[in-house]
Amino acid sequence: MNFTQSDIDYIKNSIRNIPDWPIPGVNFRDVTTLLQDPIAFNKTIQIFVNRYKNEKIDAVVGIDARGFIFAPIVAYMLNVAFIPIRKKGKLPYKTICETYALEYGESTIEIHIDAIKKSDNVLIIDDLIATGGTLLAACNLVTKLGGNIKECAVISDLLYLGGSKKIKDSGFAIFSLLEYN
Amino acid sequence: MNFTQSDIDYIKNSIRNIPDWPIPGVNFRDVTTLLQDPIAFNKTIQIFVNRYKNEKIDAVVGIDARGFIFAPIVAYMLNVAFIPIRKKGKLPYKTICETYALEYGESTIEIHIDAIKKSDNVLIIDDLIATGGTLLAACNLVTKLGGNIKECAVISDLLYLGGSKKIKDSGFAIFSLLEYN
Repeated sequence: MNFTQSDIDYIKNSIRNIPDWPIPGVNFRDVTTLLQDPIAFNKTIQIFVNRYKNEKIDAVVGIDARGFIFAPIVAYMLNVAFIPIRKKGKLPYKTICETYALEYGESTIEIHIDAIKKSDNVLIIDDLIATGGTLLAACNLVTKLGGNIKECAVISDLLYLGGSKKIKDSGFAIFSLLEYN
Repeated sequence: MNFTQSDIDYIKNSIRNIPDWPIPGVNFRDVTTLLQDPIAFNKTIQIFVNRYKNEKIDAVVGIDARGFIFAPIVAYMLNVAFIPIRKKGKLPYKTICETYALEYGESTIEIHIDAIKKSDNVLIIDDLIATGGTLLAACNLVTKLGGNIKECAVISDLLYLGGSKKIKDSGFAIFSLLEYN
């Protein structure tokens, strides 16, 4: 199945803009309206599935919490494992963790130590990339477990925050469905 | 497609038990090992899709965060809307909220006011029901928006904590894939 610019435009138009949220000056991209529209939802998933169906993916990783919405569907459609990465303290088994800087302070995310097998081909999916701190930490967790990151995929890329450049500069591939300048 | 007790047993055996987590005396049902096994993952989703595909469902609701893993896949497969319910402060648009008691203290969850249309047939999916406080609050949010709850569906029902009885006593239907006594 091929996708055209009008499909991309349809998906972009399904995302609601919320001015000044969560803080003044930020224009928040609200993906809940995309999820409420089965046509936009279907197009989005189909683009990801189509892109990766012949890439010998072994596992799809999703990041707590909005990443949990999209990544498991792609894993299901590719008939491979879904692996959650969660904020510290939420996963019940043995984990490895990665701490990264936020604008104020820091955050820590974790993955189960038996979640990825050495040389597994891994796809990481999240809904949005901003500064890229969380996604880079996720890449590092997968790499520490011996996984081979085939690509990171996001719906929305806030290019002006430099996250996707940071991912590329760190040696990982990234695919963005929608770009915001 | 029909499912047998051996399919149910396969799914149950794919869930890892973690003794004494998050606190001593609790035997935690870790669904991450189900998600890592594409056979168990596929059987689980197929049972839900098969159960609801002819039920004229308009929207599938999932609850932050583990509910986000399963509910969107069923929404996608049924070609209907996915609606997130989140902990207070996470949804960017106008919301209504519901507060419920926890063992210690209370918690508040929210839904967007335009997420459900009046008389929509709604399916609520979560991974597990314990005391049922969160799930009942979710039912109340959907009902407040005028939605018609066709059923709540969970993978694991901790029967001894009384949650599914609480849901039924409140007038809502619930389907549990796995029961723990």
